[in-house]
Amino acid sequence: MLNHPFCQKLANNIKNKNTYVCVGLDPDLDKIPDFLPKNIKSLETFLTEIIEQTQEHCIAYKPNISFFEALGIEGLQLLEKIRKRIPAHIPVILDAKRGDIGNTSKMQAKFIFDYFGADATTLHPYMGIDSLEPFFNYKDKFNFILALTSNPSAKDFEKQLMNNKKPLYEFVTKNCSDWNKKYQNIGLVVGATQDELQEIRKIDTALPFLIPGVGAQGGDYETAVNNGTNEDGIVIINMSRGILYCSNDKGFGKIVNAKIRSLKCLK
Amino acid sequence: MLNHPFCQKLANNIKNKNTYVCVGLDPDLDKIPDFLPKNIKSLETFLTEIIEQTQEHCIAYKPNISFFEALGIEGLQLLEKIRKRIPAHIPVILDAKRGDIGNTSKMQAKFIFDYFGADATTLHPYMGIDSLEPFFNYKDKFNFILALTSNPSAKDFEKQLMNNKKPLYEFVTKNCSDWNKKYQNIGLVVGATQDELQEIRKIDTALPFLIPGVGAQGGDYETAVNNGTNEDGIVIINMSRGILYCSNDKGFGKIVNAKIRSLKCLK
Repeated sequence: MLNHPFCQKLANNIKNKNTYVCVGLDPDLDKIPDFLPKNIKSLETFLTEIIEQTQEHCIAYKPNISFFEALGIEGLQLLEKIRKRIPAHIPVILDAKRGDIGNTSKMQAKFIFDYFGADATTLHPYMGIDSLEPFFNYKDKFNFILALTSNPSAKDFEKQLMNNKKPLYEFVTKNCSDWNKKYQNIGLVVGATQDELQEIRKIDTALPFLIPGVGAQGGDYETAVNNGTNEDGIVIINMSRGILYCSNDKGFGKIVNAKIRSLKCLK
Repeated sequence: MLNHPFCQKLANNIKNKNTYVCVGLDPDLDKIPDFLPKNIKSLETFLTEIIEQTQEHCIAYKPNISFFEALGIEGLQLLEKIRKRIPAHIPVILDAKRGDIGNTSKMQAKFIFDYFGADATTLHPYMGIDSLEPFFNYKDKFNFILALTSNPSAKDFEKQLMNNKKPLYEFVTKNCSDWNKKYQNIGLVVGATQDELQEIRKIDTALPFLIPGVGAQGGDYETAVNNGTNEDGIVIINMSRGILYCSNDKGFGKIVNAKIRSLKCLK
């Protein structure tokens, strides 16, 4: 997969920065340091400082579009501004969890890839290949399909056994593995709180994993790195709350900087 | 379910207007009549005329947020304006196909229900109950979970057989049926091009169905009404392209009006 520009950037960043950490940008007025007034301007100040303090120590940024949307149109204007502050060599995964019938997915891809200029996004597999193809057709962009997520209710559907006695997430993984032979721009979202990480890696050695759930959600960074890297040495370990909100101080930037430096390569 | 304000509004509209049609608002610059310049202002003119000509003959509106998003922030500003032009007695289903881990779903619900003031939305089931609950917790709002969609790739996952030899969409339906006993604000998206409509109705007689795929996608209106109504006589038959883009004329409004009048109650 190293031919893909997104994977190239990741591989370079992993090598140069000696880390696998992706910083999740989930702006939340209830969680920013108390000294900041509770308004959009503060979120801009806050996120600008976060990017400033983390850009030399992360391989990617993953803005969660829903946290910006919750603030309405002003929130999306903030996302536009923040996206422009991220240096070109650091890829942006716009976490949007989209997927719909073909003509609608085409519109979704336009918003995420053309309008926001994201390098990658996240997608729901439920509706099948024709709901995903409009995203796959952006050859220079990358797509992480939800396979096994880190929330407890992953058991409701994802872990249910299919006719072949294997869980649904494994069936989704196998389909993604097949589709990737054609498209070469597919990865998986795999929850780090799951023992199944290693098992999923065995199904396909090439698909890059985006691993959330490390930190606030309880997953372990080292285990995720050891079990999650693909044949090119790529894995994306996302941390959001664990980095963003690790300090309530006026000098939170320095604490964030120390926190992300402490997560340097373990492998 | 008639106690729910959304269902009450639907039942009243069905009775008073003698129809089951919901108008899908999918603004597309490539499809509006040729005499209109290709810009956002034209979409506003176009959608305003569509609402004007259809409001007395439809039970709900279903703006598809992705079509607005594809136009960027200006598109979402247009959605805000258009939403305000819809009279209060006609419920708005903001078609967004959301669903994420709990703290993110909460943000999504804020955007859809609080910010846009939608009466209902659509959700992906893949991540399970804790991804849906933040939406269900809005007691006065309504939620349509994707069960069986109208696209050909519904076969990829939705129609795959589970361990009990029944398809995944049936398992999703049964879960929704159980959850609805507690929340009383759940419905299903069921594709009208599917023979399985009748079968799904047998599993639960109460859940309202939102049926897309009638018209442009090939489903049949009468069949959808006959097989889709719940025990309260409610079913939502969505038509988007079939109504919006049925004329390329300067006088398209009158043709749209005649088209929607022709879809009056068949039952």
